[in-house]
Amino acid sequence: MRGKEKQNETVKIIPLGGLEQIGMNITAFECQDSIIIVDCGLAFPSDDMLGIDLVIPDVTYLKQNIDKVKGFVITHGHEDHIGALPYVLKELNVPVYGTRLTIALIENKLKENNMLKTTRRKVIKHGQSVNLGCFRVEFIKTNHSIADASALAIFSPAGVIVHTGDFKIDYTPVFGDSIDLQRFAELGRKGVLALMCDSTNAIRSGFTASERTVGKTFDSIFADHQNKRIIVATFASNVDRVQQIINSAYKYGRKAVVEGRSMVNVIGTASELGYIKIPEGTLIEIEQLKNYPPEKTVLITTGSQGESMAALSRMASSIHKKVSITPNDVIILSSTPIPGNEKAVAKVINELSMKGAEVIFQDTHVSGHACQEEIKLIYSLVHPKYSIPIHGEYRHRMTQATLAKAVGIPKENVLMISSGDVLEINEEKGQVTGHVQAGAILVDGLGVGDVGNIVLRDRQNLAQNGIIVVVLTLEKYSNQLLAGPDIVSRGFVYVRESEDLLDEARNVVNDAVEDCLARHVSDWGKIKNEIKDRLSDFLWKRMKRNPMILPIIMEV
Amino acid sequence: MRGKEKQNETVKIIPLGGLEQIGMNITAFECQDSIIIVDCGLAFPSDDMLGIDLVIPDVTYLKQNIDKVKGFVITHGHEDHIGALPYVLKELNVPVYGTRLTIALIENKLKENNMLKTTRRKVIKHGQSVNLGCFRVEFIKTNHSIADASALAIFSPAGVIVHTGDFKIDYTPVFGDSIDLQRFAELGRKGVLALMCDSTNAIRSGFTASERTVGKTFDSIFADHQNKRIIVATFASNVDRVQQIINSAYKYGRKAVVEGRSMVNVIGTASELGYIKIPEGTLIEIEQLKNYPPEKTVLITTGSQGESMAALSRMASSIHKKVSITPNDVIILSSTPIPGNEKAVAKVINELSMKGAEVIFQDTHVSGHACQEEIKLIYSLVHPKYSIPIHGEYRHRMTQATLAKAVGIPKENVLMISSGDVLEINEEKGQVTGHVQAGAILVDGLGVGDVGNIVLRDRQNLAQNGIIVVVLTLEKYSNQLLAGPDIVSRGFVYVRESEDLLDEARNVVNDAVEDCLARHVSDWGKIKNEIKDRLSDFLWKRMKRNPMILPIIMEV
Repeated sequence: MRGKEKQNETVKIIPLGGLEQIGMNITAFECQDSIIIVDCGLAFPSDDMLGIDLVIPDVTYLKQNIDKVKGFVITHGHEDHIGALPYVLKELNVPVYGTRLTIALIENKLKENNMLKTTRRKVIKHGQSVNLGCFRVEFIKTNHSIADASALAIFSPAGVIVHTGDFKIDYTPVFGDSIDLQRFAELGRKGVLALMCDSTNAIRSGFTASERTVGKTFDSIFADHQNKRIIVATFASNVDRVQQIINSAYKYGRKAVVEGRSMVNVIGTASELGYIKIPEGTLIEIEQLKNYPPEKTVLITTGSQGESMAALSRMASSIHKKVSITPNDVIILSSTPIPGNEKAVAKVINELSMKGAEVIFQDTHVSGHACQEEIKLIYSLVHPKYSIPIHGEYRHRMTQATLAKAVGIPKENVLMISSGDVLEINEEKGQVTGHVQAGAILVDGLGVGDVGNIVLRDRQNLAQNGIIVVVLTLEKYSNQLLAGPDIVSRGFVYVRESEDLLDEARNVVNDAVEDCLARHVSDWGKIKNEIKDRLSDFLWKRMKRNPMILPIIMEV
Repeated sequence: MRGKEKQNETVKIIPLGGLEQIGMNITAFECQDSIIIVDCGLAFPSDDMLGIDLVIPDVTYLKQNIDKVKGFVITHGHEDHIGALPYVLKELNVPVYGTRLTIALIENKLKENNMLKTTRRKVIKHGQSVNLGCFRVEFIKTNHSIADASALAIFSPAGVIVHTGDFKIDYTPVFGDSIDLQRFAELGRKGVLALMCDSTNAIRSGFTASERTVGKTFDSIFADHQNKRIIVATFASNVDRVQQIINSAYKYGRKAVVEGRSMVNVIGTASELGYIKIPEGTLIEIEQLKNYPPEKTVLITTGSQGESMAALSRMASSIHKKVSITPNDVIILSSTPIPGNEKAVAKVINELSMKGAEVIFQDTHVSGHACQEEIKLIYSLVHPKYSIPIHGEYRHRMTQATLAKAVGIPKENVLMISSGDVLEINEEKGQVTGHVQAGAILVDGLGVGDVGNIVLRDRQNLAQNGIIVVVLTLEKYSNQLLAGPDIVSRGFVYVRESEDLLDEARNVVNDAVEDCLARHVSDWGKIKNEIKDRLSDFLWKRMKRNPMILPIIMEV
């Protein structure tokens, strides 16, 4: 089955997006004169990336090899798989391939960026393939927390690579078919070189429950609270979840409102394309809410992660213009906090509770990712030569590596890769043979890449201790002190209550400047260092604090 | 049983520490001419309190009523119950009462602050009482994640208030007795005015498992990994947990090392007082580790919450001086992340995994707080007139309120209170009748209270966007521009790659200054505002960023 000619060919797999953090999924596959790229996601900044809005991948390697690049193949429409496209396509204008909903969600982004006309894109159906240079990529139906998710079978001259994308196994999906396990099995029987499988839930035992179980919970909550208004917060992109809320609303005679910009967008697109079926007359505009008794309505909103500007958070902190929370509200959080969001979610729950609302957050969510038994099932069907765990933190991928070994992949064929690694695999061997530039580019406002480590370190210092600016004016040539030194601080102490301290600090700076001038020091760098050293010594001894000190010398 | 004379008396309950956040537990009880204070904790800063080291309660009300204050009654030795004592006792030198280990841990703090000689303190045994003005306070044995924890029966002229402290019900504790349920029952039978019960775990159904179950897990991990070094990270103050690790070490012939300053302190104190029993020869110094094969040793360390400077984090990031992690290590995280620490803990696990170590974090911890069935049991025994949920976020206390109603407390007798509220209760009624100054005082280095909202807002601005300082020198009287305007930025953009932008910004500032001078504007405030407005307009349009702009004018 594995042809002899393949043994001379090698495929390179190059993750470009920083595998260590969740999000920003982007992987290049290179063989002969062709490169294809799977996904092009963004990531949200980690806590130490102060002031950063989002993070996109460094695609220098692709730009250097632009002649080879055949296109982007996208597994599904989540931000961490499509979000960087508007940035990257500006530098790398190649076609984009994906299923219908995925392409539609990408088109929404392109529209916002005025890039719709300049970007080639093509819808591929599950079961269909696209030829890209020496690669052929087949889209395989999977289940996930967004409709139209795909695994990919990447046929290369070196062999077949199966990439699961983000997936779970749902035997009773809300919309469409169950994952195409038969195709995975068929590929496995013919021979698969490598399996790249989602590790997000690899540390969880068992099976992820069907999306449909959440619908049952909704039904029972709706049945139990027929005299109250219901508000459900969930992920904007979870179309099936919204479908189930609408189903319960219809069943219990309620009108439904969709609130929150991103949710309105996704549901609008999904509805146009037929991925969600809304019974005539069930959906109303938020302005129409007042025409119905509260207990005959349900609001479906964003903000289930406690995002400060999302609809639910604005309702919780009384700054939503159209919805006020009352003790007559039942609020369902249909999600679990993504790691790092726990405190923000708790804050929203506390605020809602203080307004007298009942908040329900148990059994109201299922994951979109495969747990251990599902991962083992996929390995058993695909039976790859190599295991390359992807998606998830190192500890998640490492746990998948353990699972892979448990189901019979030889230890030396389980390949852990890091961002920028060039992994070369063929029938003979698989190993990292090089490293290319890769990783995170920070986006702050309209600036892409103009905030780096030095700026971030400054922001961290400023955040911790504030800044003290020392200004003085010297006379040209004579170096006589004409004005200052003046001290201005921000983020350091409450000035009115710390006048004594600041007076002392001023004296320290005065002494430093006078000493320098008395010693005829004319090198401004040295004067600045003297000011910095003495002032920071004084503040550390006196306060155990380390503000940034910025001396500025003017010359007249 | 409830005497008629009591009906004329009222007791005031005043939480001073900010009930909305976990930590900083401090509650005043006032009756006639007496005030007693239960606990005196600190809190760790929330994410928006940039640069703050810790938070202590505002005790202005107690200082104003110092004549009445009889002393501090401390339930147990955790930081969120004793940590603010060194700060508060400086302003309010009254005696401190607690059980033996609690007082010993407080004494460690007093020693560090040179306050041992000036602070009166007294050890009270479980079952004993102390008279404090018109109050009598009895200490009742409970179980918690630190030894010697107490509930308090506060006998006042208005009736008995039972305060559980932090507690769980452990029928098979590792050290000492089970919680004194009989005493709770006896008090309940005689009549209890109010129950103030721990809400931390009120949203969890069922019972918290016994501490002893963790010991069984340790034994089986030790049995399964006899060829590897074992490192266990847990809370420094969980003496029983450390006891169980030492028991497993002894059973499997390993030497144990305690590492991390706070753990060495607590275990030293607990060991001196007999709260932990270490078999002769089992404990060795970290320097002796090299004399034993790794698989014959176990390290017990701090850092289970991913705290960046704790021992385990230093090992994970290869900056620990004495311990290097290898693939021959098994690391047990014997804790669950406190909300907000999830990402820091994940980072440590990832780093340890990358070094090839195996990390175990399942079934290796039990909580120290009561779940729903335990809370209901305490209510059933104490059978109070009023329920006053304490400890935990609003949503946790609200859930306890629901439980209290479920076990029969009338709705109007379930009293939710907030920081600074003055709750007056007696046999007739319970209601909030006033409000006193209370809440958080921020500690930054040696500064207590000199960082407030303005400074924090500045730090947040600086953290998000950095600062641009604009300096210029004007001639006195003539107001002629002698030098500048110069622009210096920190934390804004990477200067070398943004020279064009900064040049344009300089032009904007130049124009602003020239316009002002041409119009003979001599009010420096107006000139500064003009600079700020124009520059921030320019930067927003050009970059969608909002750095802090600090214009400084010098005069020669």
